[in-house]
Amino acid sequence: MENYELHLENLPHSVELACEGGRIVFHYIDERLLPGELHMKATSDWRDVVDAVKALAVRGAPAIGLAGAAALALWAAEAGSRDGMHEAAEVIANARPTAVNLQWAVNRAMAEVAGLPFDEVPGALYALVKDMEAEDEARNRAIGEQGAALIEPGSRILTHCNAGSLATFYYGTALGIVYSAAAQGKVERVYADETRPVGQGARLTVWELARAGVPATLICDNMAASLMAKGEVDAVIVGADRIAANGDVANKIGTLGVAVLAKEFGVPFYVAAPTSTIDAALPNGEGIAIEQRAASEVLPRAIPGVDVWNPAFDVTPARYITRIVTENGAFTPQELAAGL
Amino acid sequence: MENYELHLENLPHSVELACEGGRIVFHYIDERLLPGELHMKATSDWRDVVDAVKALAVRGAPAIGLAGAAALALWAAEAGSRDGMHEAAEVIANARPTAVNLQWAVNRAMAEVAGLPFDEVPGALYALVKDMEAEDEARNRAIGEQGAALIEPGSRILTHCNAGSLATFYYGTALGIVYSAAAQGKVERVYADETRPVGQGARLTVWELARAGVPATLICDNMAASLMAKGEVDAVIVGADRIAANGDVANKIGTLGVAVLAKEFGVPFYVAAPTSTIDAALPNGEGIAIEQRAASEVLPRAIPGVDVWNPAFDVTPARYITRIVTENGAFTPQELAAGL
Repeated sequence: MENYELHLENLPHSVELACEGGRIVFHYIDERLLPGELHMKATSDWRDVVDAVKALAVRGAPAIGLAGAAALALWAAEAGSRDGMHEAAEVIANARPTAVNLQWAVNRAMAEVAGLPFDEVPGALYALVKDMEAEDEARNRAIGEQGAALIEPGSRILTHCNAGSLATFYYGTALGIVYSAAAQGKVERVYADETRPVGQGARLTVWELARAGVPATLICDNMAASLMAKGEVDAVIVGADRIAANGDVANKIGTLGVAVLAKEFGVPFYVAAPTSTIDAALPNGEGIAIEQRAASEVLPRAIPGVDVWNPAFDVTPARYITRIVTENGAFTPQELAAGL
Repeated sequence: MENYELHLENLPHSVELACEGGRIVFHYIDERLLPGELHMKATSDWRDVVDAVKALAVRGAPAIGLAGAAALALWAAEAGSRDGMHEAAEVIANARPTAVNLQWAVNRAMAEVAGLPFDEVPGALYALVKDMEAEDEARNRAIGEQGAALIEPGSRILTHCNAGSLATFYYGTALGIVYSAAAQGKVERVYADETRPVGQGARLTVWELARAGVPATLICDNMAASLMAKGEVDAVIVGADRIAANGDVANKIGTLGVAVLAKEFGVPFYVAAPTSTIDAALPNGEGIAIEQRAASEVLPRAIPGVDVWNPAFDVTPARYITRIVTENGAFTPQELAAGL
């Protein structure tokens, strides 16, 4: 096994709320510019945050949850009263339809300040977001530890999309397991699917892994089958945008295909996500709204007579999933369902 | 089912040898410029033909077979004697390593002129290539008819890469079946995988289908699983670059993944190829040399610390294949193996 030195201290915070000169400021990496440019943007306008989420400048279920709560804090700092707060919350929660964390974070923020006089709301929301950031990191580190116990020494791990530090406040979920297992000397290499059409694997995951010092190999999405057939993959780890009560998982488009391949080639398939990703009210994955995105993401210059189908997510049935790893442990989908 | 009018007369010839003013000229579409530009190039220099094959300006197993024989004809027209003919044949045959048709066509051309006085060689090779072009079209039309019999009315067909008119002299193999079935009113729509990293699906297949009038929808490679899970695919049809004696099929990278998905979701998986694609000397797919291509195809701007794995082909074991359709019929891999 190749020797390498981990540098987890180089992992970036993808989002962070700050108070500067009495003003609440949301900082975020514009991930559309990676890997070419690491550009930290700052705004105090809640509408900018909504736009950043819609445009995928900020992405990843945990990160957009934090962005959602931060947007509400910025709204409150700007507003003089509660008028319009519910409407703003709705605009924020609907910036993207599939990730439950966004809805969850906005609901939590609304509940947090429900009984407060309005002049205390901005400060309370600011404090809440800072708590959520710390919780996110602690949860991700816990997911990392829980998941690392599943990883064999010398493992070559395949991941899809980006469920790393760039998808969370810090550390990541799927990549959190990689980082914890790598710190235990168990990770030989990570293969990253490029993850068309947006390229989260090609632009974000390999960049983040290289920054942390983990050996990374980029493949096209359609090469995963060949890699598994050659016996080059010991485990697959992905994140999740929403988990139904029965353990069905909505995640980045292409996850289902990787899960089917993993089953066919006898490779364990792990999903890493905080418990806030579980939508206990949803009996199974069939009810999950799948966001359709613009044709131009796939085909920049339209060809007359050619349609494009561009769903952002797919649903992986629980039967393909070996373990769902949360901050509380690593569970089979059945165990997870039984515990709800 | 959507009504549409077929325009097969709009399908292009991807390669064609001509005799103009006593000079042999190879015409080819530079497919790197599609779909933006349909540019027919012409050359009488055999080295240009080798370069065009290496650079994927001319691609598709049957088309590069024709290009290989044409290159030898151009070599002979330039040479004054047989000196160096075997060396030239070797350079041509090795322009790309995986497709057996290239080797096959060069061998056939060498055998054709083995006993001739050298001054008759250029003319004989020219006549051979013209015969091979006509044979290619006739064979593709036969594959189309044989395969169309397998297609149910109202079918939505998924294809990977481009095994169409742009991969052959005319009509195509996998898309030949689509055209024949569409002429019988059986094809509702074709879904085309974009086929990373070179994009043969996104640039060539959907363009060719639109030109022929067949409703076409482009998807990213990683969306095929979701499409099949929704029951939107009635059959998969792909081409082949080399078929081993046991029915294992080497084809464009990503074919294996689609085949595994087709099996999982109960969708028939058809391979369309002329018998010249069968390498009877090769017992199974394990012996097939898989061409590795440049990292820059996947990652145009290198990221320090990040490797790329970029095989151009994969091998689909016979057990995933429902039928292999040749000009002689539609066979299970077992039937095909028994007939060799």
